[in-house]
Amino acid sequence: MIYFDNAATTFPKPQGVYDAVLNTMKDYGANPGRSGHKLALEAGRSIFFAREKVSKLFNIENPMQIIFTGNATESLNLAIKGILSKGDHVITSSMEHNSVLRPIKALEKIGVESTIIQCGEDGCLNPENIRNAIRENTKLIVLTHASNVTGTIMPIKEVGKIAKDQGVLFLVDAAQTAGVYEIDVVKDNIDLLALPGHKGLLGPQGTGILYIKEGLNVKHFKEGGTGSKSEELFQPEMLPDRYESGTPNTPGIAGVAAGVDFILNEGMDNIRKHEELLTGYFIEELSKMEKVKIYGPKDSTKQASVVSINIGNEDSSEIAYILDKVYNIAVRSGLHCAPMAHKTIGTFEQGTVRFSIGYFNTRNEIDEAINAIKDICSQI
Amino acid sequence: MIYFDNAATTFPKPQGVYDAVLNTMKDYGANPGRSGHKLALEAGRSIFFAREKVSKLFNIENPMQIIFTGNATESLNLAIKGILSKGDHVITSSMEHNSVLRPIKALEKIGVESTIIQCGEDGCLNPENIRNAIRENTKLIVLTHASNVTGTIMPIKEVGKIAKDQGVLFLVDAAQTAGVYEIDVVKDNIDLLALPGHKGLLGPQGTGILYIKEGLNVKHFKEGGTGSKSEELFQPEMLPDRYESGTPNTPGIAGVAAGVDFILNEGMDNIRKHEELLTGYFIEELSKMEKVKIYGPKDSTKQASVVSINIGNEDSSEIAYILDKVYNIAVRSGLHCAPMAHKTIGTFEQGTVRFSIGYFNTRNEIDEAINAIKDICSQI
Repeated sequence: MIYFDNAATTFPKPQGVYDAVLNTMKDYGANPGRSGHKLALEAGRSIFFAREKVSKLFNIENPMQIIFTGNATESLNLAIKGILSKGDHVITSSMEHNSVLRPIKALEKIGVESTIIQCGEDGCLNPENIRNAIRENTKLIVLTHASNVTGTIMPIKEVGKIAKDQGVLFLVDAAQTAGVYEIDVVKDNIDLLALPGHKGLLGPQGTGILYIKEGLNVKHFKEGGTGSKSEELFQPEMLPDRYESGTPNTPGIAGVAAGVDFILNEGMDNIRKHEELLTGYFIEELSKMEKVKIYGPKDSTKQASVVSINIGNEDSSEIAYILDKVYNIAVRSGLHCAPMAHKTIGTFEQGTVRFSIGYFNTRNEIDEAINAIKDICSQI
Repeated sequence: MIYFDNAATTFPKPQGVYDAVLNTMKDYGANPGRSGHKLALEAGRSIFFAREKVSKLFNIENPMQIIFTGNATESLNLAIKGILSKGDHVITSSMEHNSVLRPIKALEKIGVESTIIQCGEDGCLNPENIRNAIRENTKLIVLTHASNVTGTIMPIKEVGKIAKDQGVLFLVDAAQTAGVYEIDVVKDNIDLLALPGHKGLLGPQGTGILYIKEGLNVKHFKEGGTGSKSEELFQPEMLPDRYESGTPNTPGIAGVAAGVDFILNEGMDNIRKHEELLTGYFIEELSKMEKVKIYGPKDSTKQASVVSINIGNEDSSEIAYILDKVYNIAVRSGLHCAPMAHKTIGTFEQGTVRFSIGYFNTRNEIDEAINAIKDICSQI
């Protein structure tokens, strides 16, 4: 099986991640932050180290501002609903995932206003359109760092600057870029950063992260045992406890830390260059095929390693099915939980066949995909 | 290290659980329910099997009513806040964990009324007190199946009957009993059942479950990609998708399924009998020690395998510290995130030293604990 579904979750993971998950369960599988015995302390330490490592990667000064969640969707919900109240206005783009659009649409029912900035057919966003949409009651801008459909990289630096200038909070959804592209919460003026632990960070599924800038008051949605201020019937205000009730996913979080270790050892630049190289080569070869339509920027320096295509007017799921059954190539077809993005690029009916490339993919695998697509083209 | 902190999380886990987590990550670590390729389908199947296995254990007819969450705290928050609205009344007990009491206290701010039924000094609840507290606007009764402080088993059958008779919904927090004590959602008239995956079910941390009875309208709090109805900007209504947005914890959930397999193979009766035997023996020996005060029913048939004690007037954390440092015995001291339970049993200031026994504990380990306590008693 050749795996080109890394935008859904990266696979495989580095050996160190498997080891970290297993060793955490076997060697100190206690509940962190509750009891004071050796195993519990060791579990607590491993979570703190993970906070430190993640902080380092995104230039976050205080590791206690790192909240561990179950996935990036939970992080986005927490950030969006924790910031916005009735009467507030939020700006986002037409290339967002449903994990951004659905919470915003749900908030409209309680009186939150929203503006969705239309992106170009290649998914590109003009930052000036964001600036022009800002109103007096604009509280938040939410932007994906790269589209999960076309890979299109969004101008987060420019938008971050606009947000700062205008006194608007800035939430970045880094689901497709964290661990591969440089993100600096200080330089990029990011107030809230939502991350999956199991994509570019190479950790296991069941892990997500939300960075909350110090001093921001984000409402919490869960209360429960935090192992702190146990005597009180109200949720403690201190971070990260306020947002982390109940037993955390200790093995999963240790796995994320091991993923970050791998990234730091390999070098994020090397990871990105490898993915860029494969993506560029893939786009180049696909461009030669008459029946293949490629979406997005078609430029590996302007898109994350996500390439959406269609073959003629064939249904995208049919092509994905053939790739799986005949060629043993795993891709994802359809709308990728991002219907507005597909409307933006004109594929709402057909969907696209999405190849998402990871660090463990090889040039040989790209060649196999190219040959498979050529083959399919010749038969239809 | 002798581990007596199983009420926080069971440790170790069965070998099959470690294998399931590792194999899921290594062999089919794809994103379930999204793509249609072989690995994704395999991941999806493993989650469906887990739903089926958990359903079987609690006599749940439709596995799609099983919602996977991050922990039991998330399950309890979803159930409590998903059911209660302004003007509703909820009844609970003074033995509850903060994962029940804190969400209820938070709801008071939006106009939910609550009654907390006072339990006896041994943690026991008189079901008639629940019946008497029911008002016209009572929507929900929330009750732990067994206290995490004293182990006291609550009369869920009787309360379930009262709830059904009075047309009130019944939510059971089975954090301390699931996987060890028989729970039958039909016979026990349970409408909502909150479970941790990582305690008696023997799965890894990062897993929780909420069973929602068919037909109940529980509000959801997260929206996002569900892999279903991707074309819509609103959260799908169907279960489990409505409550499971974003990438699930596939390895963790597979681990829970392996935990349930282990329980079914060993026989839940055998597991309970083993824990009862050790708990009974431990209580018997502790009762002979003059300086030791035992809390709760002091009867292994009336309490889960949780034994809280104090030694004279010594601070509970001091005793726990000595047990850890000198005797290599892991327990949990303090308030166990259940301050009202400690007020109920009179230990709000001192806390208790909690020994929580698991299936992998042995009689020898109980003997070591008894000797350690004797030793400590002789020195103070």
